[in-house]
Amino acid sequence: MTVQPGRAGIVGLGLIGGSLGLDLQSRGWTVQGLVHRQVTADRAIDRGLVNSISTDPACLSGCDLVILALPIPLLLDPPAELLAAIPPAAVVTDVGSVKQPVLAAWRHRHPRFVASHPMAGTALAGVEAGTPNLFCGRPWIATPDGDTDPSALATVKDLAVSLGSHWLTASASQHDQAVALISHMPVLVSAALLRAVGDERDPEIRQLAAALASSGFADTSRVGGGNPDLGVAMASSNRDAVLRVLAAYRWSLEQLEDAVLQENWSQLHVELKRTQALRPDFLQPLGDINAEN
Amino acid sequence: MTVQPGRAGIVGLGLIGGSLGLDLQSRGWTVQGLVHRQVTADRAIDRGLVNSISTDPACLSGCDLVILALPIPLLLDPPAELLAAIPPAAVVTDVGSVKQPVLAAWRHRHPRFVASHPMAGTALAGVEAGTPNLFCGRPWIATPDGDTDPSALATVKDLAVSLGSHWLTASASQHDQAVALISHMPVLVSAALLRAVGDERDPEIRQLAAALASSGFADTSRVGGGNPDLGVAMASSNRDAVLRVLAAYRWSLEQLEDAVLQENWSQLHVELKRTQALRPDFLQPLGDINAEN
Repeated sequence: MTVQPGRAGIVGLGLIGGSLGLDLQSRGWTVQGLVHRQVTADRAIDRGLVNSISTDPACLSGCDLVILALPIPLLLDPPAELLAAIPPAAVVTDVGSVKQPVLAAWRHRHPRFVASHPMAGTALAGVEAGTPNLFCGRPWIATPDGDTDPSALATVKDLAVSLGSHWLTASASQHDQAVALISHMPVLVSAALLRAVGDERDPEIRQLAAALASSGFADTSRVGGGNPDLGVAMASSNRDAVLRVLAAYRWSLEQLEDAVLQENWSQLHVELKRTQALRPDFLQPLGDINAEN
Repeated sequence: MTVQPGRAGIVGLGLIGGSLGLDLQSRGWTVQGLVHRQVTADRAIDRGLVNSISTDPACLSGCDLVILALPIPLLLDPPAELLAAIPPAAVVTDVGSVKQPVLAAWRHRHPRFVASHPMAGTALAGVEAGTPNLFCGRPWIATPDGDTDPSALATVKDLAVSLGSHWLTASASQHDQAVALISHMPVLVSAALLRAVGDERDPEIRQLAAALASSGFADTSRVGGGNPDLGVAMASSNRDAVLRVLAAYRWSLEQLEDAVLQENWSQLHVELKRTQALRPDFLQPLGDINAEN
C-alpha cells in the first residue's frame, strides 16, 4: 500500500518543515504552510517551500496529513487554535527530537497522531534553511505505542520512504535514550569544551589556543556552539536520559583521566584502540536493524 | 633575508614529512629522505616525496637543513646514529606537537636546533599521506628560548613562510598549554564520548544509537576515534598540561550538568549562548597575533 499524495499541511517552515514542503510538492502533494509571522509567510512563498500559506490555523481544514514541524516547547504546549483547526480525520505527525513527552502531549489530543523523528542536520535554521532531499538516505524513526492508529502509522512510513528515508521504529523510551547518547549529551560535552577553553585565565594562552585551533577543535566544538534554544529544548525535554548518559560520560572520562594520572600508557593505548574501533559502528550506512517494520 | 634553497634532509616521511618533501622540492630544494624501512623508502620514491632516499643516517651529511618529522617517542629519544649523522652546521628543526620535552631533549644535542610545530591535519598517516600545500594558510609556531640560534630561527621562519604558513612564536610552555586545550584534551573528551556510547548496556539502545548517529556525532567523535599511538604520545609527553585542562574541562561540564539537574533552563541558555558566541573565535583566519616576529 502506498499513500496517495493529497493535501498536506506543514506547521512551521524552518529547516525540517521547509525541506518537507519542497520534497512533498515534488512527490505530487499540494502543500499548505502555516507560520506565525507574515514576513515568514511571504518568504516561504518566494522560496517555493509550499503551494499556499497562511498565518491562520483554519488553513489546515482541507488537509489529509498535518506535519507539526514546530520547536519542541511549542510542540509540547500547542495553542488551542491549532488543536481546534486540525481535521480529526487527518494523519498527524511531528518531527521533534524527543518522543516520550511529545507522545504524552499528543496521544490524547488527536486520534491519528504518530510520533516520529526524521534525523536530519540542524546546523541551519529558519525559513532560508529548507532544502530539497534533506531526508534522502537518513533515518526516520517512529515511536508508536498501543494507542497508535496502524493506518496512520503506515501513512507516515510511506511518506518517509517516499522521501528516501530509512524507516525504523522503536519505543519512545528507547528512542529518547538513544538520542540522548548520540545527540543531546554530545551537545553538552562539546559545549563544556568551548566553556573550558573560554575560561582559560592566561590571556596569552587563550589567544594562542584560538590561533592554533584547527579542524579537530572545529569538529569537536561544532554541536556545542550551536543554537542555544535547541540545546535547552533537548536537555529540558529529555532530562532524565541526558542526566543518565552524562553520568556514564563522566565515568568514562574519569577512566581516561586516571590512565593519564597513573601514567598507565599501555592502558590508555588499550582505551584509545577501543574507541578507534568503536567509531566506524556509528558511521555505517543503515543496515536492516528494523527491516520487518 | 630569504633562505636560499639548498639541500634538505627529512627524517620520517609520514603525513608531515612527506608533505614537506613535496613542498620543499617545488620551492627548489633538493630533498634527501631518511626512513627506517626499505619498503617505505621505495614507496616514497615512487610517490616523488623526495629526490633521493636512504635508510642510512649518513645520507644527511650534505644537508643544510634537517627536519625531524618523527613520532614523538623517537623524537624524544633519538638514536645515536641519527645524532652523529646530522651536520653540526645544519639548521635542525622538528614538527612535534609538544615543545617543552622536545626542547629539553634537543637543546644541548645540536647547536642550531629550533623547536617548531606546523599545525596541520593528522587524520592521515604513513607514506601514502603526504600531500602538496598541506601547510598553506595554517599556523607554524616556533618556541625559541635564550639558547636558540637567531639565524637558525630565521631560516625556519623563511621556510614556513615560503610554504604559505602563518608564522608565530611563543614560549614552549605557552605552546604546550595551548595545544593541550585545543588539541590534546579534545582527543580524550571525544574518546570518552565513544567509550560512553560503547558501554551502553542495553543492546537495543546501543544498536539504535548507532543507527541514528548523524553528522553531529561523527564530528564530535572524530578526534577520539583517531590514531591511538598519537593520542598516547600527546598525553604522555604533555601530561601536566593535559591534566590541568582536563580538570578545567570536568569543572566546566559539571556546571552544565548542574543546570540540567537543577532544571535551571535560563542558566543553561546563558551557558549555551556563551559557547555559541565563543566558537567563532576559534575558527577565524589567523590575525596578526605575532606579527612582530
